[in-house]
Amino acid sequence: MTRLLVLNGNTTEAVTERIAAAARAAAPAGVAIEAATAPYGLPLIVTRADWLLAGPPILAALAAHRGAYDAAVIAVFGDPALEAAKLLLDVPVIGLSEAAFHAAAMLGRRFGIVSFSAALRPMFEDCLDHHGLRGRCAGFRMGPPDAAYPAVFGAAEQAALLALVRDSIAQDGAEAVILAGGPLAGLAPLLQPAVPVPLIDGTAAAVRLAAALAGLPRPARPRAARPLSGYGPEIAALYAGSGPS
Amino acid sequence: MTRLLVLNGNTTEAVTERIAAAARAAAPAGVAIEAATAPYGLPLIVTRADWLLAGPPILAALAAHRGAYDAAVIAVFGDPALEAAKLLLDVPVIGLSEAAFHAAAMLGRRFGIVSFSAALRPMFEDCLDHHGLRGRCAGFRMGPPDAAYPAVFGAAEQAALLALVRDSIAQDGAEAVILAGGPLAGLAPLLQPAVPVPLIDGTAAAVRLAAALAGLPRPARPRAARPLSGYGPEIAALYAGSGPS
Amino acid sequence: MTRLLVLNGNTTEAVTERIAAAARAAAPAGVAIEAATAPYGLPLIVTRADWLLAGPPILAALAAHRGAYDAAVIAVFGDPALEAAKLLLDVPVIGLSEAAFHAAAMLGRRFGIVSFSAALRPMFEDCLDHHGLRGRCAGFRMGPPDAAYPAVFGAAEQAALLALVRDSIAQDGAEAVILAGGPLAGLAPLLQPAVPVPLIDGTAAAVRLAAALAGLPRPARPRAARPLSGYGPEIAALYAGSGPS
Amino acid sequence: MTRLLVLNGNTTEAVTERIAAAARAAAPAGVAIEAATAPYGLPLIVTRADWLLAGPPILAALAAHRGAYDAAVIAVFGDPALEAAKLLLDVPVIGLSEAAFHAAAMLGRRFGIVSFSAALRPMFEDCLDHHGLRGRCAGFRMGPPDAAYPAVFGAAEQAALLALVRDSIAQDGAEAVILAGGPLAGLAPLLQPAVPVPLIDGTAAAVRLAAALAGLPRPARPRAARPLSGYGPEIAALYAGSGPS
Amino acid sequence: MTRLLVLNGNTTEAVTERIAAAARAAAPAGVAIEAATAPYGLPLIVTRADWLLAGPPILAALAAHRGAYDAAVIAVFGDPALEAAKLLLDVPVIGLSEAAFHAAAMLGRRFGIVSFSAALRPMFEDCLDHHGLRGRCAGFRMGPPDAAYPAVFGAAEQAALLALVRDSIAQDGAEAVILAGGPLAGLAPLLQPAVPVPLIDGTAAAVRLAAALAGLPRPARPRAARPLSGYGPEIAALYAGSGPS
Amino acid sequence: MTRLLVLNGNTTEAVTERIAAAARAAAPAGVAIEAATAPYGLPLIVTRADWLLAGPPILAALAAHRGAYDAAVIAVFGDPALEAAKLLLDVPVIGLSEAAFHAAAMLGRRFGIVSFSAALRPMFEDCLDHHGLRGRCAGFRMGPPDAAYPAVFGAAEQAALLALVRDSIAQDGAEAVILAGGPLAGLAPLLQPAVPVPLIDGTAAAVRLAAALAGLPRPARPRAARPLSGYGPEIAALYAGSGPS
Repeated sequence: MTRLLVLNGNTTEAVTERIAAAARAAAPAGVAIEAATAPYGLPLIVTRADWLLAGPPILAALAAHRGAYDAAVIAVFGDPALEAAKLLLDVPVIGLSEAAFHAAAMLGRRFGIVSFSAALRPMFEDCLDHHGLRGRCAGFRMGPPDAAYPAVFGAAEQAALLALVRDSIAQDGAEAVILAGGPLAGLAPLLQPAVPVPLIDGTAAAVRLAAALAGLPRPARPRAARPLSGYGPEIAALYAGSGPS
Repeated sequence: MTRLLVLNGNTTEAVTERIAAAARAAAPAGVAIEAATAPYGLPLIVTRADWLLAGPPILAALAAHRGAYDAAVIAVFGDPALEAAKLLLDVPVIGLSEAAFHAAAMLGRRFGIVSFSAALRPMFEDCLDHHGLRGRCAGFRMGPPDAAYPAVFGAAEQAALLALVRDSIAQDGAEAVILAGGPLAGLAPLLQPAVPVPLIDGTAAAVRLAAALAGLPRPARPRAARPLSGYGPEIAALYAGSGPS
Repeated sequence: MTRLLVLNGNTTEAVTERIAAAARAAAPAGVAIEAATAPYGLPLIVTRADWLLAGPPILAALAAHRGAYDAAVIAVFGDPALEAAKLLLDVPVIGLSEAAFHAAAMLGRRFGIVSFSAALRPMFEDCLDHHGLRGRCAGFRMGPPDAAYPAVFGAAEQAALLALVRDSIAQDGAEAVILAGGPLAGLAPLLQPAVPVPLIDGTAAAVRLAAALAGLPRPARPRAARPLSGYGPEIAALYAGSGPS
Repeated sequence: MTRLLVLNGNTTEAVTERIAAAARAAAPAGVAIEAATAPYGLPLIVTRADWLLAGPPILAALAAHRGAYDAAVIAVFGDPALEAAKLLLDVPVIGLSEAAFHAAAMLGRRFGIVSFSAALRPMFEDCLDHHGLRGRCAGFRMGPPDAAYPAVFGAAEQAALLALVRDSIAQDGAEAVILAGGPLAGLAPLLQPAVPVPLIDGTAAAVRLAAALAGLPRPARPRAARPLSGYGPEIAALYAGSGPS
Repeated sequence: MTRLLVLNGNTTEAVTERIAAAARAAAPAGVAIEAATAPYGLPLIVTRADWLLAGPPILAALAAHRGAYDAAVIAVFGDPALEAAKLLLDVPVIGLSEAAFHAAAMLGRRFGIVSFSAALRPMFEDCLDHHGLRGRCAGFRMGPPDAAYPAVFGAAEQAALLALVRDSIAQDGAEAVILAGGPLAGLAPLLQPAVPVPLIDGTAAAVRLAAALAGLPRPARPRAARPLSGYGPEIAALYAGSGPS
Repeated sequence: MTRLLVLNGNTTEAVTERIAAAARAAAPAGVAIEAATAPYGLPLIVTRADWLLAGPPILAALAAHRGAYDAAVIAVFGDPALEAAKLLLDVPVIGLSEAAFHAAAMLGRRFGIVSFSAALRPMFEDCLDHHGLRGRCAGFRMGPPDAAYPAVFGAAEQAALLALVRDSIAQDGAEAVILAGGPLAGLAPLLQPAVPVPLIDGTAAAVRLAAALAGLPRPARPRAARPLSGYGPEIAALYAGSGPS
């Protein structure tokens, strides 16, 4: 049995439940999903400042569950705390943008990024550069920057999203399309029948890739204890030198 | 049960057996491995011309087994026939270089490529550009271009390889290292205890990632029949329009 | 006398004739053009899979004429078999996309790519990356993906094409424009008077550049015989070790 | 009078004093330097995890002094909290790596990066990508990864550093050289007479560039209050909506 | 007192006066501005040929004033003579495009370029590549290529410009916007109140950055005398070996 | 008959004669070579400042011969005046670095650059970026920066050069090698028999490519007269509006 921790980096429990459901739906056989919520921080993560401040609570949650998972998903587009977590933990950690980009790149030569609102574009631009996959990106198709996400994605919203997906394919030459933004989680399987290229859902991609990475050999990295002040006991434990993993 | 076809693109059965063993060792629970050998072509794939000529027999083998696998691995560094196969088949297909690069990129910020002989370097250069991941590559550490691969990797050969791995880490700043070249398959778990960063084996990476991709939604792509002459019935079938998958 | 082989990579003789005429019109003094047709494969090359399957018949035709030409043009946008041919033959071989890109880059700082139909865009995207000249490309202006090429380019079609060329110049800043796609061969000299930047025709560019490269010194590359199965005698001959060139 | 806040992102007061002295030595006329120390976190910032955890205390310190400076320098190589600070504050904020790269790029076509120890290389690799200036970097010349920084840079250490600088110029073609790493602060003016290209000190570059940016027009960016939990009153104030600046 | 030479590279005195005023308005305390005009050449610099021919008179003017300034600004978008001047003079020299790009990059993750007319686009494309900052550019928003610059920027022209700025932000994701083209000098502070991201004026950026660089240590570069014919005494003096600076 | 003007951009007549001989040796049948020397400027072009100052005399010489050639070669590594000449003249103009890069790229996937002295490296770095072909370059192998070019390339010098060529192939993976630097002109055919990849001579490449481009259609670009002062009658004529070509 492979155990995955899927960590909602914001503080909204309802989002955690939605992510957990999506993760469980995507999990391969033999993989158990545990979901957790950031213990403090932001109810919604939107800006670069949010990503930074979401980092310590994400690390704290990852630390609190140490030993209870074989790989972790930081279930936030923008991948807050990702590089720190990769360094501090002895198991693979993967982010939502990272997973979506890599899965899309393996399923199509050039991938488009589609979102209901343009508010997340700076984050995706940053992530494309950070993960070094800008050359595989065909471009963005996004709604207006101030679009409010609807509570429910009804027929009209789905039609609007499909129109963006089709533009991405026809105008930008996308051969796979990422549905970007937390509220779009779970829509990919629904819309896929109407779309002739793979639709990528970040949570599904991350769960499947995290399970894949969990099975690869990994180095034992003994870590010396290093001084750190001002953080709670979970994060402090990550700086106390190698513990169980 | 997820069924993976692991296809040896050269015609040497002994290599197929070695790859099959490595694939089975790396397969997640619930994943069955079937191995196949290219029906014609080259006993050893080394040059760019080899990659082209290995392509049709690889497509033929993929076509011959159609319907019997949920994802396929083209188990050749250099990824011959990869883009054609992604287009013609209704299931995910992944190459060894592609898998090694993506796995390495998810496990370390910059990855090194280590090989016993420099003969494969042009292929890896081409693949880095093709997959758009050159920016994540820290560089190459390779033996002399005319190094013959030893029949067995004994202590001396392992020590030589470890020295290259350590140069990749210390001189090039690699944070993950790909062991490149078919004959190195299976060495990663053996050498990992002596290495402080993840060692990537192409076959293991490809098997795990193929299983991951097999579970994602995919488009139904009806294909019109198109005329093709001069190829055998398997490849011809791929051009006969959508069949079972 | 420099002898050029201009090879139509598809099996349609009428296309070979059209290409041969365009090649002869563009050939410098002292250069003789011989045209040949791929002995099998596809009547029309459109997809990545087509490029792969067009490769062996192209190699076969190049091999069949070995010794009778000083340089060869693979007269297919997308450059199938190009890298294999460069490796296996002792004379320069150039592809249509390759030639168009290099000629355009020497005649304008940034070149646009214009086509009647968007169907060839993935091919051009791939070729830009493969030849490393994406940074010189100002962008694409193409008709709808499902546009059927007209049998004859009358005044209306020419006007539509000119409109795309002008958008490429005015909107994208193109300083040279490639007319992309086999059916556009021969139009560049016709449209040039109406366009203030160089219009690049792939066949003409390839013929002129192939003749240029034919005159440069080249290495003698003795090749050891290597085993290959499943291909006809022409390709087999390329693997039989160095022959006459 | 322009007021600069120079913020030491680690918790070591002695480092703050050294940075403050270097900053004052480099400050233009009419610029007053105030130095501050991160209120908690790490005594020494080395790893990617450190950068993340140094972020909130840096934001807290920047927030605590809000209204008392016209521009800020985050005086840590690696630029922790930089993008969040740029977003949350109404005055320009610049990081040490960012400043060193931009100053070096304006003073030489290609810049080398020289350091006593290779431990900081991953950070510099990340920063080159983040700031988009990798194409201007000629390469790294660094001591061994485990080199301990000497308490004092005596003649022997200076000679060792000069040898690295000369390699950067002669072997890599550097036309400007960044002395990288906090402990090298203040050495540039000392070594410059022996070096034929500009030597860049991060603190000096950042102080001069921050003063430059402080004088440019900037937008008024009213910020809506947004919920945030688990952080102290300084950071909370940054999320309370626009305050004085 | 820091002395800056701001050099108008065209021969139009009225432009020199306008630039001098803008430079003085942007100069930090303790910085004196001297303005000069190219002694010959072009009244208006637009094309790549113009940049080349503007080069020698710019060098002549820089040489004529040698010893009287601590840093120089070549106040022409396109940066004519920039690399030669950096090499031949012992003080920092900065160009308008160079300064605008670096300032914009320090003030926003991705910057847009806005201009009244598209005529300058090729120049900006060239400069982005030359300075290696294309990756930071979000795109161009420009008026028609044949737009004549109005003598005065009245309300209508300002509104048109603001519309382009807003497109750059909303459509391209620009987080800072460069107002490009000499005639736009001085507009940034006027329009800034209506724009939520930093507006960059080339002259202001160059003056502030030149003052910043003037205070950094610089190498003594003795230069051997080298033969040069056909140029006037000022340029000849630059080739006569090291003189006063 | 196609007429090529091969222009030596420095003022040394002996170099012109050597270049003319090399150009004639490489010229295709039906191509006549006329050689010319820059009327003033530098006897040897080495630095970036030299390239700028070599520009106007090169333009003057190109203008003086207008109407007497169908394409021109600026026979200087570093390509001074190249972009201006392309713009001002109605016939193709090609530079030595430009030609060497494009020819090498068409003859090998990745090309090395070999030179007797490292003094030209900054120039080649700049040219790689300018022509957008850095991704095709495998690296530099050069003698010491202060190496004096020998008057004659005897056996010892040729052996030293061959050693650099072999390092480029074996260490850097070069599949074609450019012999860089004027004094190496003419050596490629001599050394080619000892080298297993194509050796590229700049002059030969430029002559063949210029002849190739001369045969392609080109736009009629009427040019309005524009004011220019301070230059001689030849350059002034280029600004007097369209003349005969």
